[in-house]
Amino acid sequence: METVEIFEVGPRDGLQPEPVFVETAKKIQLVDMLTGAGCKRIEVTSFVNPKWVPQMRDAREVFQGINQKDGVVYNALIPNMKGFERAAESGLKEVVTIMSTSESHNKKNLNTSVPEQLKIIEEINKAAGPEGIRVRSYIATVFGCPIEGSTDPQKALDIALALESYGAYEISLGDTTGMANPDSAYYVPKTILRALKKARLAVHYHKYFGLEFANNLASYNAGIRIFDGAAGGLGGCPYAPGARGNCATEILTEMFHRMGVETGIDQQKIEEAGAFAQSLSTLLYKKDGGVACNT
Amino acid sequence: METVEIFEVGPRDGLQPEPVFVETAKKIQLVDMLTGAGCKRIEVTSFVNPKWVPQMRDAREVFQGINQKDGVVYNALIPNMKGFERAAESGLKEVVTIMSTSESHNKKNLNTSVPEQLKIIEEINKAAGPEGIRVRSYIATVFGCPIEGSTDPQKALDIALALESYGAYEISLGDTTGMANPDSAYYVPKTILRALKKARLAVHYHKYFGLEFANNLASYNAGIRIFDGAAGGLGGCPYAPGARGNCATEILTEMFHRMGVETGIDQQKIEEAGAFAQSLSTLLYKKDGGVACNT
Repeated sequence: METVEIFEVGPRDGLQPEPVFVETAKKIQLVDMLTGAGCKRIEVTSFVNPKWVPQMRDAREVFQGINQKDGVVYNALIPNMKGFERAAESGLKEVVTIMSTSESHNKKNLNTSVPEQLKIIEEINKAAGPEGIRVRSYIATVFGCPIEGSTDPQKALDIALALESYGAYEISLGDTTGMANPDSAYYVPKTILRALKKARLAVHYHKYFGLEFANNLASYNAGIRIFDGAAGGLGGCPYAPGARGNCATEILTEMFHRMGVETGIDQQKIEEAGAFAQSLSTLLYKKDGGVACNT
Repeated sequence: METVEIFEVGPRDGLQPEPVFVETAKKIQLVDMLTGAGCKRIEVTSFVNPKWVPQMRDAREVFQGINQKDGVVYNALIPNMKGFERAAESGLKEVVTIMSTSESHNKKNLNTSVPEQLKIIEEINKAAGPEGIRVRSYIATVFGCPIEGSTDPQKALDIALALESYGAYEISLGDTTGMANPDSAYYVPKTILRALKKARLAVHYHKYFGLEFANNLASYNAGIRIFDGAAGGLGGCPYAPGARGNCATEILTEMFHRMGVETGIDQQKIEEAGAFAQSLSTLLYKKDGGVACNT
């Protein structure tokens, strides 16, 4: 039996850009539903400065409130050492860093340069290792940047190798604004997969009216077995013009299940979690005057 | 340069299930926009009994009203000989027949058995040949039937070979209710493609929240180079419970264009035609109490 691993980002990447604060209890409920659906790795929240991302200001409370199940890894996005320290205080066993291939997007998103952010991530890895905390690292704008245009795959490869050298447990290639196509979704992950010696490799596609599933399929065909998804397909990026929602986990699992590929996730329960996530979204219902399609 | 052929079905398969009659002038405008976007084959309407499909009761007027451009083939769906005669009277050079692999769906959709419908299509081919009219033939429910469940691929193969023996110019494999997956979308077309001696082979996917693009990609990887789409992703099937819209042409072309595959279609103009098609739909806006997502 063939299996893939789904990395659930809905509570963080899905809810983060929501303009209306989602009650802490609802966030906890979403995470618990995802646990109940069989998700084994869940990006619960983000330890960022609440001044910049007020939606995630309850990071600590969410972590305290969720029903943590054995065998499930609950993690959080951290932009810097401060975030790492808060995450470590909350007892996390996995943290997620982020940076872009693109200087312009990195600056907008993190207010650092690419070399500065690499340095920060190196420090995070140095601090995480001794504490037994795993580091997952996003590389954003791998398949194109909404500001700079096309991305040289060599940039993503160089960054991936640097991240691996710092000790990254896993690297996830982000298509921040849904610019990938089945060719780039095949050859970029394939190239990086071949080059990595130890770090695991995932892909993280954003929506483009359904093309995200063709892209996930292409990456699967390239040998990728770890896929990021957000229940309900929520999301976007406030610092990436044109960013749409994340690839919907429940459609991704439907695709794999139809192919007979095991995900460990219960299809009906993840659809329920997706529907619940959508019920928390006002962003999803804002486009085109109240019509629900952040596709 | 690699090219694919897009077979546009929006004016027929997209509009057909719309419960509110779409003005003839609007239908004509849609066809003209599709011609303007560079579509080379357009399924304009259906010569069916207006008692059963009142939406298509203006088939003749639509054909008279459209601005037919040299090099573009305008065709129509015909369920039987009566439809063929009406289509021939309207001067069509290509007609499109339909039947299902599934007895239950064939009965509901056409009120004939599978062998009866094969006989009808054989007669249509006999009549079409001498008049220089090409016959395109849909096989519906190839990747599963909403009534009968899974479909034995052998059934689709047998029907395809029968249709070819009658003289079909082209066969299109229909995923009537979006039940395909990237595996079946690869191996079923591949198997039939290998077996056909002369007839061309197309695929016709319906929506399942975006999986239709993964399915089109899989069929492309299997060697298919003719793809059906409906501008705006409209559609459904009144006799197929659970049927969703058609694969949206403008997203399909976007996928191919990103891959550097030529479609002959102008991306911006097909997006405009898609948006116009959506503006004609009330069905699209009915689901979930007024929310637009017939995905």
